[in-house]
Amino acid sequence: MIGIFDSGIGGLTVVRAIMDALPGYDIIYFGDTARTPYGNKSSDTVIQYSLQNTDFLISQGAKLIVMACNTASSVATDAVKKNFNIPIHEVISSAVKQSLKATRKSIIGVIGTRATISSGIYERKIKEANPEAKVFSAACPLLVPLVEEGWLKKPETRMIVKKYLHPLKVKQIDTLILGCTHYPLLKAIIQHKIGKKVHIIDSSISVAEEINNFLSVSPETEKVLSRNGTAKFFVSDLTQQFKITAAEVLRRPIDLTHIRL
Amino acid sequence: MIGIFDSGIGGLTVVRAIMDALPGYDIIYFGDTARTPYGNKSSDTVIQYSLQNTDFLISQGAKLIVMACNTASSVATDAVKKNFNIPIHEVISSAVKQSLKATRKSIIGVIGTRATISSGIYERKIKEANPEAKVFSAACPLLVPLVEEGWLKKPETRMIVKKYLHPLKVKQIDTLILGCTHYPLLKAIIQHKIGKKVHIIDSSISVAEEINNFLSVSPETEKVLSRNGTAKFFVSDLTQQFKITAAEVLRRPIDLTHIRL
Repeated sequence: MIGIFDSGIGGLTVVRAIMDALPGYDIIYFGDTARTPYGNKSSDTVIQYSLQNTDFLISQGAKLIVMACNTASSVATDAVKKNFNIPIHEVISSAVKQSLKATRKSIIGVIGTRATISSGIYERKIKEANPEAKVFSAACPLLVPLVEEGWLKKPETRMIVKKYLHPLKVKQIDTLILGCTHYPLLKAIIQHKIGKKVHIIDSSISVAEEINNFLSVSPETEKVLSRNGTAKFFVSDLTQQFKITAAEVLRRPIDLTHIRL
Repeated sequence: MIGIFDSGIGGLTVVRAIMDALPGYDIIYFGDTARTPYGNKSSDTVIQYSLQNTDFLISQGAKLIVMACNTASSVATDAVKKNFNIPIHEVISSAVKQSLKATRKSIIGVIGTRATISSGIYERKIKEANPEAKVFSAACPLLVPLVEEGWLKKPETRMIVKKYLHPLKVKQIDTLILGCTHYPLLKAIIQHKIGKKVHIIDSSISVAEEINNFLSVSPETEKVLSRNGTAKFFVSDLTQQFKITAAEVLRRPIDLTHIRL
């Protein structure tokens, strides 16, 4: 199975993109809703949680791991790769590659949680690939709670998005990476506030494409992934909100189990 | 020692009130910053966390427990009292008593997290004491992240507070319980939006008064509490934000230790 974990509900956008790009592959998802959010927590804590989540998914039969959480991808990828001997995918590298293809002026913006932005990982990866690129980042810590509240179209949300994007807009970025799996749900407002001409990179779509490419050149992994079209969802805290968002994002009823890690 | 726990930083307002009301008493605080916030999580999960937090404080020498978190107080008080044989104080009963003293028309408003409001505990306790009272409640889930971001005076915060308070304002409440330890930090905006004449009840101050009264009639507890004027702070995740808020709320440097539960 393809194992996917996230700090909570945001990773469901990655599940949807993987279901679209790789129909039929069995999926197992773990949402750490008992300890969500990760974005304001320290690296040490996020690393510890990411190792536990990966261990759980492997114990359930996962043969490939997708760290669907940008915060975990930012700070815990090295630790997870070191501790587990199966393919580990994170959501950052593929978004970086796509942003470098999309940009015309090599002026790229990145938005994410406080932990993701503090890690500096997007800037580092972009500059490794293109030392001439200019990267401007903004932490947007209130967007996750606004999305989780379903305040997707309220005037307060528009004002807060505008405030967060202002420093990137004045730098005239031409490409913007949504460095948090919650943000695609605000894509319309973000596009409106940053300007129509700015190319928006949704990391859920780029990671799904990357995994598709990876499987086409990795038959030894491809052949151990089962393909019965099943999807199992585990959460560390069973709340109504998860069910509602899962139904909205995936547009189908889901098989949901509560598990204490 | 007096043991105090909270889901994170909000309980520091209770620490301050207890230090003011009971100067010299030794305090030990645990902030569950690795799993914060509790307000959108299920009762089962909040109960499990509350039992672990209480166990930790007792292992460190606490002889009296204050559950400084309204969410934990709402859903976990019975479980904590059942499992531990020392005095357990929560932040709800004292705020309810004070609101009943303050109200003239017996029309009382309550604001809190989703978990606190869903529990219906304020309404139940108020009606137990005065079956004629009218109680109107509103969940305000975005106020905790706004406070944690330090957005205490921003226009977006004012708009969101106004939106949340509107249903209570039209009911012409004359008393409003701040049913979350974060909310005293927004007291000025809340007072402005709900109206000058509405009496605001801050649960941190009422619980400190209640403990003061309790100790004056409970010599067996009073004599086992040490009084060297010390305060130790433990957190499950060490973040910069805790240090900043602790310095602001307590107005002195603190002895802070990171502990994994």
